[in-house]
Amino acid sequence: MQTILNHLHDHRQDNLRRLDLLLRIPSVSNDAQAGPAMTQCANRVAELLTEAGMDEVQVYPTAGHPLVVGSWRHAPGQPTVLIYGHYDVQPAGPLTAWKSPPFVPEQRADRLYARGAADDKGQFFMHILAIEAIMKKRGTLPVNVVFLIEGEEEISSPNLARFLVNHADLLRADWVVISDSAMWAPGQPAICLGVRGLINLELTLTGPREDLHSGSLGGILANPLEMLARLLATVKDPEGRIGIPGFYDRVRPPSPAARQQLQQFSLDETAYLAALGVTAGWGEPDYSLLERLWLRPTFEINGLYGGYTGEGSMTVIPSVAKAKISLRLVPDQDPEEMVRLVTDYFHAHTPVGVTLHVHRFPSGARPIEVPDDIPPVLAARHALQEGFGTAPLLVREGGSIPVISEFKQLLNLDTLMVGFGLPDSRIHGPNENLHLPTFHLGTESLVRFYDRLAGS
Amino acid sequence: MQTILNHLHDHRQDNLRRLDLLLRIPSVSNDAQAGPAMTQCANRVAELLTEAGMDEVQVYPTAGHPLVVGSWRHAPGQPTVLIYGHYDVQPAGPLTAWKSPPFVPEQRADRLYARGAADDKGQFFMHILAIEAIMKKRGTLPVNVVFLIEGEEEISSPNLARFLVNHADLLRADWVVISDSAMWAPGQPAICLGVRGLINLELTLTGPREDLHSGSLGGILANPLEMLARLLATVKDPEGRIGIPGFYDRVRPPSPAARQQLQQFSLDETAYLAALGVTAGWGEPDYSLLERLWLRPTFEINGLYGGYTGEGSMTVIPSVAKAKISLRLVPDQDPEEMVRLVTDYFHAHTPVGVTLHVHRFPSGARPIEVPDDIPPVLAARHALQEGFGTAPLLVREGGSIPVISEFKQLLNLDTLMVGFGLPDSRIHGPNENLHLPTFHLGTESLVRFYDRLAGS
Repeated sequence: MQTILNHLHDHRQDNLRRLDLLLRIPSVSNDAQAGPAMTQCANRVAELLTEAGMDEVQVYPTAGHPLVVGSWRHAPGQPTVLIYGHYDVQPAGPLTAWKSPPFVPEQRADRLYARGAADDKGQFFMHILAIEAIMKKRGTLPVNVVFLIEGEEEISSPNLARFLVNHADLLRADWVVISDSAMWAPGQPAICLGVRGLINLELTLTGPREDLHSGSLGGILANPLEMLARLLATVKDPEGRIGIPGFYDRVRPPSPAARQQLQQFSLDETAYLAALGVTAGWGEPDYSLLERLWLRPTFEINGLYGGYTGEGSMTVIPSVAKAKISLRLVPDQDPEEMVRLVTDYFHAHTPVGVTLHVHRFPSGARPIEVPDDIPPVLAARHALQEGFGTAPLLVREGGSIPVISEFKQLLNLDTLMVGFGLPDSRIHGPNENLHLPTFHLGTESLVRFYDRLAGS
Repeated sequence: MQTILNHLHDHRQDNLRRLDLLLRIPSVSNDAQAGPAMTQCANRVAELLTEAGMDEVQVYPTAGHPLVVGSWRHAPGQPTVLIYGHYDVQPAGPLTAWKSPPFVPEQRADRLYARGAADDKGQFFMHILAIEAIMKKRGTLPVNVVFLIEGEEEISSPNLARFLVNHADLLRADWVVISDSAMWAPGQPAICLGVRGLINLELTLTGPREDLHSGSLGGILANPLEMLARLLATVKDPEGRIGIPGFYDRVRPPSPAARQQLQQFSLDETAYLAALGVTAGWGEPDYSLLERLWLRPTFEINGLYGGYTGEGSMTVIPSVAKAKISLRLVPDQDPEEMVRLVTDYFHAHTPVGVTLHVHRFPSGARPIEVPDDIPPVLAARHALQEGFGTAPLLVREGGSIPVISEFKQLLNLDTLMVGFGLPDSRIHGPNENLHLPTFHLGTESLVRFYDRLAGS
């Protein structure tokens, strides 16, 4: 072990140089002009996997951007880990907000600033470095590994599911490991044991055939904007409990393990909310803030629009009003059933004088809860404790990670989520950065993790 | 009388030619490039007033577009009528929707198609023709008249109030007459005895400091969009009665005259609503459709927006949500008091976790009720009966006409509203048109009107 860690320590400069080259490739997946950069980046990832000792390394074209697979399966009798990551990045956003150019990495103090430094090039590279170090010093690996590094995560992975299904044998594994999230705090590693599911809906209320003059015709018919407000206002009680019949029926009561996880935290809820700029919280009063974030489903309005929205005023009764709605789901809520419940509810409560259309967007995810006793979780707990000198917190995430739901649905694999970003890594924003001490400690922890996993 | 009517009949071709020239001038007041056209149009109106025998005709510059005043005050002991009109027009809108170019008038069947044909060039020109015909045949007028033709009506008359105040003596009169509205139906003239007042407000609800991720942070705090919907949904009861304390306190109960006016109509409410494309009405159930349109105040949402409103979905909790609101007021509701009542109500009902800002736009108008027994109303009833062979209907308008409120507020003048558009004159839309038989009958009726007014 120590020789491997020494190897990593001795090669820090070279490893950062290789990361620098990876970060210079502007692999912005939603940029229609980025084709050459995406191919260049996929090829570069393939080279890194080959350098790390993977065999069968191949760049696979898709209907969109290519993805890269490289595996090493020469540890018979040992488990296999599928290491997922993504080489595509978010757009840089306004360049003037960046202190250094987003695709010219710059180290300032103990951070490396670049688009993709934390999300996710820096993080999947840590796995490559850990595997490579073990291979270099031992000539073999303690477990079997398959790297799957895609190029479309930031655009909702439209071609991943088909690839998983069509290459199930190539990708066969016991668990998935993903490092694409953040630690709880600097020096405080975290393992994420649950993510909420997601449904995206759009409600359209249509009233009069055309926009009407709100003076000449105001007072005699249902204004779609007003009816939309009234309809949406019925969803929750004054304290924030969702009143849609059956909405909570399948919500699994918090397990003893989940309750225990929550007890790790003594969150100052007032301070937490104040940091977001609000003076008071709102939501199911029977649950703590973390319970509401991690264990309870939500109904949120993400967009509302209709009528005149420009400067000044315009006296119109619009023909149409729309709302974008998202639900976050928790185990064991089923997305199809929830769409049905919500749609039925809205149809049953649509006022007279307007007609309702509910559209479901194809994007979405199932809720995921990761058992806390599967080998990769146990191995990660030990490895992070040893690597960081402190026990990792077991956390959950209020957001949704569709690929984890696809690994579970399509390949029946549980996923270990262990991230090495920091809360201020500014992913998706300007001045995205990687905290280098965490990068090094995390890579060392991953060496320990793969070692620990052997024999399980 | 008959010689005057004969004169009008004999000069129809020439009069339509003069109207054609007026309609060819693209006096679009909201067009920043229209300055020369506005000046040309004002000068042309001044020429028409001079041709009609007005003296003291003058084009007055304003901070915006010029206005034109011409008067004849040589009927001592007789009342004075201020004839208001506007030579500016709405933008033409999409040219492809016009069958003939908007500023090249074309007669098809019995209609003249052009922007401004009905709103309002064609209508104020009828008054000029009526006055001109009397002058030509008699060398004098039965009453004193002052024409005030402005060039900014379609952009809310920003410079009119100042002109009224600064030229009160020039404009001194007993009543105002405006022809800038429509008859009830072809062949069925109407006198409008009331318009509702108007207040325009914007509500802004602010929650978290920045837009938040609705997954990572959904369920713990007030979503401004949701709170806006909840707040707006409290305003009315399930049947549409406004619950803001004091909202109806000053609403004058319908006078016997108002009730009598309503009894002229046997409206098929279902057919009326079906024509607007709705299957059911909504609003105060204790009042008929026409009562709700003409005699009851309203609260309408004209625009609602916040969050993501583009294609597809985006999981955001927006920092800010906004609503544009308008109130229509009826006598004796006071705009200042109503703003206070509504603002106080919203502040009192703003949920925790969001802050409210209420902005009042400067546009607006006071409610107006015109006594049905003032001389110009009585004269118009007789004149229209004689001119059209049928008694005019006494109607009201649900919309608001700020200039009428300004004439009342600033000069203490009541206004006779007698319009000669038709319900399908398509003002503000493509293919605006003037029904020529109505134009001719209306002009003849105005001759009778000015004659009738003498001695009152």
